[in-house]
Amino acid sequence: MNFASDNASPVPQQVLDVLARVNSGAAASYGADDVTAEVADRVRALFEAPGAAVYLVATGTAANSLSLATLCAPFQTIFCSEHAHIHEDECNAPEFYTGGAKLTLVRGGDVMTPEALRTAILGEGNRGVHGPQRGPVSITNVTEGGNVYALSDIGALCAVAREYGLPVHLDGARFANACVKLGCTPAEMTWKAGVDIAVFGGTKNGLMDAEAVVIFDPEAPASSGFTRAQEFELRVKRAGHLYSKHRYVAAQMLAYLEDDLWRDLAQQANDRCETLARGLQDMGLEIVNKTRANMLFFRAPLRAHKAAQAAGAVYALWGNPPEKADEPALARLVCNWSTTEAEITEFLKVMRAAL
Amino acid sequence: MNFASDNASPVPQQVLDVLARVNSGAAASYGADDVTAEVADRVRALFEAPGAAVYLVATGTAANSLSLATLCAPFQTIFCSEHAHIHEDECNAPEFYTGGAKLTLVRGGDVMTPEALRTAILGEGNRGVHGPQRGPVSITNVTEGGNVYALSDIGALCAVAREYGLPVHLDGARFANACVKLGCTPAEMTWKAGVDIAVFGGTKNGLMDAEAVVIFDPEAPASSGFTRAQEFELRVKRAGHLYSKHRYVAAQMLAYLEDDLWRDLAQQANDRCETLARGLQDMGLEIVNKTRANMLFFRAPLRAHKAAQAAGAVYALWGNPPEKADEPALARLVCNWSTTEAEITEFLKVMRAAL
Amino acid sequence: MNFASDNASPVPQQVLDVLARVNSGAAASYGADDVTAEVADRVRALFEAPGAAVYLVATGTAANSLSLATLCAPFQTIFCSEHAHIHEDECNAPEFYTGGAKLTLVRGGDVMTPEALRTAILGEGNRGVHGPQRGPVSITNVTEGGNVYALSDIGALCAVAREYGLPVHLDGARFANACVKLGCTPAEMTWKAGVDIAVFGGTKNGLMDAEAVVIFDPEAPASSGFTRAQEFELRVKRAGHLYSKHRYVAAQMLAYLEDDLWRDLAQQANDRCETLARGLQDMGLEIVNKTRANMLFFRAPLRAHKAAQAAGAVYALWGNPPEKADEPALARLVCNWSTTEAEITEFLKVMRAAL
Amino acid sequence: MNFASDNASPVPQQVLDVLARVNSGAAASYGADDVTAEVADRVRALFEAPGAAVYLVATGTAANSLSLATLCAPFQTIFCSEHAHIHEDECNAPEFYTGGAKLTLVRGGDVMTPEALRTAILGEGNRGVHGPQRGPVSITNVTEGGNVYALSDIGALCAVAREYGLPVHLDGARFANACVKLGCTPAEMTWKAGVDIAVFGGTKNGLMDAEAVVIFDPEAPASSGFTRAQEFELRVKRAGHLYSKHRYVAAQMLAYLEDDLWRDLAQQANDRCETLARGLQDMGLEIVNKTRANMLFFRAPLRAHKAAQAAGAVYALWGNPPEKADEPALARLVCNWSTTEAEITEFLKVMRAAL
Repeated sequence: MNFASDNASPVPQQVLDVLARVNSGAAASYGADDVTAEVADRVRALFEAPGAAVYLVATGTAANSLSLATLCAPFQTIFCSEHAHIHEDECNAPEFYTGGAKLTLVRGGDVMTPEALRTAILGEGNRGVHGPQRGPVSITNVTEGGNVYALSDIGALCAVAREYGLPVHLDGARFANACVKLGCTPAEMTWKAGVDIAVFGGTKNGLMDAEAVVIFDPEAPASSGFTRAQEFELRVKRAGHLYSKHRYVAAQMLAYLEDDLWRDLAQQANDRCETLARGLQDMGLEIVNKTRANMLFFRAPLRAHKAAQAAGAVYALWGNPPEKADEPALARLVCNWSTTEAEITEFLKVMRAAL
Repeated sequence: MNFASDNASPVPQQVLDVLARVNSGAAASYGADDVTAEVADRVRALFEAPGAAVYLVATGTAANSLSLATLCAPFQTIFCSEHAHIHEDECNAPEFYTGGAKLTLVRGGDVMTPEALRTAILGEGNRGVHGPQRGPVSITNVTEGGNVYALSDIGALCAVAREYGLPVHLDGARFANACVKLGCTPAEMTWKAGVDIAVFGGTKNGLMDAEAVVIFDPEAPASSGFTRAQEFELRVKRAGHLYSKHRYVAAQMLAYLEDDLWRDLAQQANDRCETLARGLQDMGLEIVNKTRANMLFFRAPLRAHKAAQAAGAVYALWGNPPEKADEPALARLVCNWSTTEAEITEFLKVMRAAL
Repeated sequence: MNFASDNASPVPQQVLDVLARVNSGAAASYGADDVTAEVADRVRALFEAPGAAVYLVATGTAANSLSLATLCAPFQTIFCSEHAHIHEDECNAPEFYTGGAKLTLVRGGDVMTPEALRTAILGEGNRGVHGPQRGPVSITNVTEGGNVYALSDIGALCAVAREYGLPVHLDGARFANACVKLGCTPAEMTWKAGVDIAVFGGTKNGLMDAEAVVIFDPEAPASSGFTRAQEFELRVKRAGHLYSKHRYVAAQMLAYLEDDLWRDLAQQANDRCETLARGLQDMGLEIVNKTRANMLFFRAPLRAHKAAQAAGAVYALWGNPPEKADEPALARLVCNWSTTEAEITEFLKVMRAAL
Repeated sequence: MNFASDNASPVPQQVLDVLARVNSGAAASYGADDVTAEVADRVRALFEAPGAAVYLVATGTAANSLSLATLCAPFQTIFCSEHAHIHEDECNAPEFYTGGAKLTLVRGGDVMTPEALRTAILGEGNRGVHGPQRGPVSITNVTEGGNVYALSDIGALCAVAREYGLPVHLDGARFANACVKLGCTPAEMTWKAGVDIAVFGGTKNGLMDAEAVVIFDPEAPASSGFTRAQEFELRVKRAGHLYSKHRYVAAQMLAYLEDDLWRDLAQQANDRCETLARGLQDMGLEIVNKTRANMLFFRAPLRAHKAAQAAGAVYALWGNPPEKADEPALARLVCNWSTTEAEITEFLKVMRAAL
């Protein structure tokens, strides 16, 4: 009954199998090996983007920060939601990687609207050299609050960015969960909607530690005047994120791509979350995020949470808890590929008893 | 016949076995899991340093840069050899991580002498606020040029550093190879000689991607005024080097430590290198690095190298090659844990034929 | 009729006189001269802080950023108001100088309340290594919105900071205007209220380009582990803000301190502003900032502003102007030491005619 | 008898006169004033560069670092001499401003030869993403060692830079002294020889604190992808080097340009230095720098230096002094615009007595 995070999950056997498969003989280091080349080709095919540059790094923070640094000069500002992971949970990594750029928070909480984004953009970049200059827009799908942007939402946000000549970064730590939920292709969720650099996350959805960064126009100028591909490669190395024995990070991503494993894992997590949501709603509990993939936020009396946790349910309360035991408290439940129906059933039983 | 790099090697079966062993059920993320705790305990025991803080990162560049940033303020300078990896092969990573510190090269090529280190220290930090302030000394063992510092060498370098109140970092990408060669304990090669932060490298010696950073005095003040342990943890996260599914990087290190696997792997690589060295010397070829572990630099006529490479030997020429085919050219050969006697025999046969 | 900015003003004759007075013979460079020593002594006396370290830089942005970098590690966050100059008008200078720290905006617009500051502090520093760590609190007096914090306000904000162990920076670009308005001593407005580093601004109040930074506890540890005084000196040099012919920046500050010139200049500017405020209120116009020093924000129909500007009044509209000529538009008027009664009279005449 | 530094000198009366002249009425702030515009026009005319962008900052360190940051991405390296001011005397300012670039020292001491520069360039930028990428070449004229590059020297260094596509920065802290010595035009010493950005220093040659940065191709791409002019302006503001009351820094430069004051001041300093050199040579003392402008390095027995200093001569010994009083010690003498014939005569008398 662990709903604490998709990071708590193990990895499917297929990942270990491919690790074993690639583990023989010598291989060229630093990404010049065959496995890496195959993965890049497969990602390009998956995204219907034959000209894209594809890179693998091991963490979402690295993937996001390196992407943003490639798009954002130190005297610019990044537009993101008030609860974006890059703002709240990366210990100033974007500021570090960009060399001191700013993050401008688009007001309105977890989900950005095109109007709020426009207001934020209008509020910056209009004071000559005195204020920061406008930089990239960063969208997260699934959001930190568990919401899924529709394709039309992404398109509308990208359209606002384009209007002001700003590039778009997609934080896709839960890319697969969003994509499966939307029933769309990776291309539709990214470059067809106007995204310039996308993170195709693998770690939260079953890999050990592998995220693919897809740069759709690698020849476009980056924040340093180099091309985006050149600058990304240099920044990866300079940050210590270029793996010498690169075949092992590539092997994970290969397993993820073979037989659409990534879709199956995400579908499983989303399905479990849906079961969970229905169960909680049946008890009359409020679910806060209306659109969902594999994560839900719900309210229950504080004492119910305490009872459920005492009974073995592992999950986190969110925000500041109330003072009294009877007051409603917000909590987050995350399902992952390995969450079982039995765990859901048990959790719902425990929660019903706790109420 | 691949002698290009220890990074080209596969991983021993034990590593895959431990990965499989830890791969069940949920585990706390970001290093709060049991495997990570066990590894930290084992590293502390191995280094006879019960008070040390132990962290795992995936690359040597990250391990070095994070360690140096913890010891070096932006207005200080790091003392290292002219051919240190941190200077030549990390694309300005130390400058990035420290926020713009300098590297002061200790003259004399690959190996630092205490006298040359002292001269370098005297040359900095004596111009008030105008020059950079003196910062940490960084020693590499095995060096980039394939030399092994004796324990007395390390002690003498650390003594000079101490005289000026400077902390010492040990780049141990090939820690095991040096340690086995010296027949000493990890403690003797580090804190007993005066080292403050050591990198206990795993990747080049058989792991997929895992390096342990050992901070011997975690409560000492770091370059930010936080303690070294606190600052290291914050810098790791801020750089995107904190792995969410941390048990998998820990599992690799666990395999490395169990049954002293790290020693066996290094011994194997060093032994093969010794066989190789004797074979080349028997042909009358000059070996440049007198002390050695698993890496040797030797000279042969350029045409001999070309012939050997054409016959399937994979290795790199070093420095600028000569113009004429008969002139001697420097080359590097690296053995790793998986190098076989058969490969050595074949290579020597090929080289003899090529001469 | 120039009310655009206090930066538009000339300098009083006393400043030129002292420049001429110090301009003979050789003087030690980089601040080792007698004029600089005298100024430091006088500032210490003025602030009743015999142990303080005093430094001179030429711009408010430099003074603020260097102070904040001395108090804030790269993985921390600075708490400031939503409209702080350090956030809106310094082109990411604090992010640059701190090496990538964050600014956390205290909600509520121009003026911080202790409650809002506490809420902001509680919202950060509580996510372990994932979020930024809590760093300094930055207060501005006079605020960007023209408001003057009372001594009790500053004390209350500092008390909240202290409760969480956070140091306090005071942006005093208009220090003199606030101090005169409050009728207090510099000591009361700073260290007696709990401020750790104060900027005693001179430029906006009549100097060419000189700001004094007063570090009340120079031996306290800075963000680098050096003392605050050492680190400030190193950061000043490293940023190119250490003037070689330092006597000339010191001479300006000397003129400012002699015969309390700083108070007279500020009093003059504040008095003019009061006359202006009364005149506008007499016309029934709304003045937005209730507490004031030398700057006021008022609303008038857009067409009235346009007419006044056409008649020669120089000042800026603030925020986004309305679409229709009859709608009220916000504008800022700044008085400085050289503003004359005649200018005020003329402006009020022009504005009355324009309404 | 102060020969310690040209920074020790006062300013000529003309500077104070122009400060007084511009000191009336309101003026637009942040460089939008008429004086600044006039200065920019005059600098463009002086350099025969009608398309150049011209900026004023207050220190040489700022001028150099901002120029280099405009030309150098964080993952590149700057080529300069072993004793360049940017390397030895700016407390890591170039590393700070560039966001962590490296400085590659061109071997050979104070003066770079084209061959040594080429060797340094060949030694970098050839390790793919592992080493730093090649960045700008920085030339200093007059050098820190008091040598003057001939026009053909500058041209030859720029030719090597061009061969590898690298831009060139000229540190002209003593630009006027070199230019007068060479009897050339500012254009010949800069863009006609191949320089991309030049610092036209004023402070060491008589101003209070003013340096002009001349960007010859302001539309060329900078290290951020912005144009060089845009990026320089943003970096100036972000570093706190944009003066609000800009007319006063401009007034200094205006005085410098009127009636070729800059030439007269430099000629005076150079002439005095020549007299000094002849006098020392007549005593049989060795002058180390063969080409000279206003600065000379000479050797005399340590006891002679001590005696001369005891007799009131102010100047610095250079490098590590010898242990015995009879051994020769290196010293630096700097003449400035205000150095008198009487001072020279007295110094020579004192030194002769001391020998």
